[in-house]
Amino acid sequence: MRRAQELLTDARLDALIVTHLPNVRYLCGFTGSAAVLVVTERGALLFSDGRYTQQAQEEVRAAKIKILKGKSALASATDWLGKQKRLRRMGLEPEHLTVGEKQILARSVGRGVRLVNAPPLIERMRMIKDAAEIGLIRTACHLGVRLFSRLQQVVRPAVSESRVAGELEFAAREAGAEQMAFTTIIAAGARSALPHGRASAAKLPARGFVVCDFGVILAGYCSDMTRTLHVGRPQKETRSVYEAVKDAQQAALDAVQPGKTVGEVDMAARKLLQKRNLARHFTHSTGHGLGLEIHEAPRVAAGQKELLQPGMVITIEPGVYVPGKWGVRIEDTVVVTEKGCEILTPCSKDLISV
Amino acid sequence: MRRAQELLTDARLDALIVTHLPNVRYLCGFTGSAAVLVVTERGALLFSDGRYTQQAQEEVRAAKIKILKGKSALASATDWLGKQKRLRRMGLEPEHLTVGEKQILARSVGRGVRLVNAPPLIERMRMIKDAAEIGLIRTACHLGVRLFSRLQQVVRPAVSESRVAGELEFAAREAGAEQMAFTTIIAAGARSALPHGRASAAKLPARGFVVCDFGVILAGYCSDMTRTLHVGRPQKETRSVYEAVKDAQQAALDAVQPGKTVGEVDMAARKLLQKRNLARHFTHSTGHGLGLEIHEAPRVAAGQKELLQPGMVITIEPGVYVPGKWGVRIEDTVVVTEKGCEILTPCSKDLISV
Repeated sequence: MRRAQELLTDARLDALIVTHLPNVRYLCGFTGSAAVLVVTERGALLFSDGRYTQQAQEEVRAAKIKILKGKSALASATDWLGKQKRLRRMGLEPEHLTVGEKQILARSVGRGVRLVNAPPLIERMRMIKDAAEIGLIRTACHLGVRLFSRLQQVVRPAVSESRVAGELEFAAREAGAEQMAFTTIIAAGARSALPHGRASAAKLPARGFVVCDFGVILAGYCSDMTRTLHVGRPQKETRSVYEAVKDAQQAALDAVQPGKTVGEVDMAARKLLQKRNLARHFTHSTGHGLGLEIHEAPRVAAGQKELLQPGMVITIEPGVYVPGKWGVRIEDTVVVTEKGCEILTPCSKDLISV
Repeated sequence: MRRAQELLTDARLDALIVTHLPNVRYLCGFTGSAAVLVVTERGALLFSDGRYTQQAQEEVRAAKIKILKGKSALASATDWLGKQKRLRRMGLEPEHLTVGEKQILARSVGRGVRLVNAPPLIERMRMIKDAAEIGLIRTACHLGVRLFSRLQQVVRPAVSESRVAGELEFAAREAGAEQMAFTTIIAAGARSALPHGRASAAKLPARGFVVCDFGVILAGYCSDMTRTLHVGRPQKETRSVYEAVKDAQQAALDAVQPGKTVGEVDMAARKLLQKRNLARHFTHSTGHGLGLEIHEAPRVAAGQKELLQPGMVITIEPGVYVPGKWGVRIEDTVVVTEKGCEILTPCSKDLISV
């Protein structure tokens, strides 16, 4: 919170109106689903609603709590902001405030007040994880790896994708996960060509790829990993496609180093797939940052100039997809270190056929 | 889609830029996580990104698909909108477009174009469900009821809340649910006083309430129900509090009739709790609409003037909470009929002690 207050001064803001819930949580610990946090040089105020009176008292550090009976978090915050005479330049989060919410704010603040788009101050703080955060992400990722061994025992022909997801998610709950980090992807056979193929009622085929992409949330922090299994005996082409993706993923991992750009990491995977004549089937970016959110800064994508720094946590997940036929993706979560990276999801990437 | 196009004309809009994903799905069937749908009098265009090429082709009806390589849905949509000469008055969804996204849009459209806040046209269409939608919600809710019988077999002292949630969610998956409609709430003992007490590692006590609030998504539509169980033998005060909430819920159910306002329904529950001297502990609103989203119009809250109409699907869920001690909530999902309502979550509300 103190660092955020310093950034406020640097950005010449009298107040920052934080409406992005992961930013609220990062700054003051509150995990509820309705909140506005106002940070000023003098302190911070958390606004929520009646459902969260007790929870806010238990969770919030480094901010005072204001909950007005029968009022929403935003209404309470605008009430308060409307009365402040000294806060002339208020920053808002343009990516996390709707057009409608901004109008409510604009109507309530005084005439002399300027509502300006703040730069992504908190997102940039969050991009570099401290040792405690890295520890939490590592724990979540290691749980992911253990769950994957459980998952392998369930994958076999004629079992439904949603059954596989169910077993995985049950094991996650048993191990104490708060929830899954995103809708579990179990995509088998021709469905493996859907990069975001959520587990469906479809049965696993007698032969084909099964893309398994899943993550848990543990103590607030996400894990993310993908492995692609194969049911039945893989054919020659199948093997070579799998090896190409595996090599592309390794090439991208090798490219992770402080001082390089995230775009160079993306390019490393893309170049390798070009050599194998598969680059046109790699239809998404190589990865994304991860922490309190499953997708956060930086984007690991073509042309992105962000420099890698120690403490960044990113995914490396190239994939190739031929619509109507098959798809393969391999993904690790890594933390950037002084010299390269540590893989937080250590787990074999050899082609497993079941 | 045709009805939406008519509404466009009524609202004097040349185009509606739909950025709220449930609205996109409602209008054209697309279920992906990245989309902008532009509706004009002449037709509709769905913009997405490279991950969704195949999925969009499979799912989308009543709209043409535009996916540009390496471009986001919003970037593709703004490209296209920037080239249209005839669309002078474009409506946007103020509650579902961020300040940042609006700026991107505003920069790309021509000078003569006006970007105006559209009224919630699609939300109001969605508020009245047709027979097919009611059928899907009924099926989802009936699954919820079956899951609750499974859940009762797991609830006992010393089992963790998250274990109970895990069993429930596994059974949901086995039954074909796509995912849970929201983070499962299993809140036991003193935690039952947290209206949004997500299942935690805490163990169920030897004696106390267990609030179980959960929902599934089946074929895109949500279910929602809450029952409060009791572990151990309930004491006299416990019983009377439970009965008060049950009676308040029944009073609200009895108030559901076409032509009444949603505020009257809320008042019915609140009045009953006033008589039992518990109204100050009823700290949230009585319910909410439900459909493709777990929370949608109308809000069933104090003072709300929306008139009930046949085809509306709402929850009725009063609760009382004493911080640090206990909480009770009972919730059904109902569909408004010509004469009253049909309970979509038929399941005993007597106090069950396990």
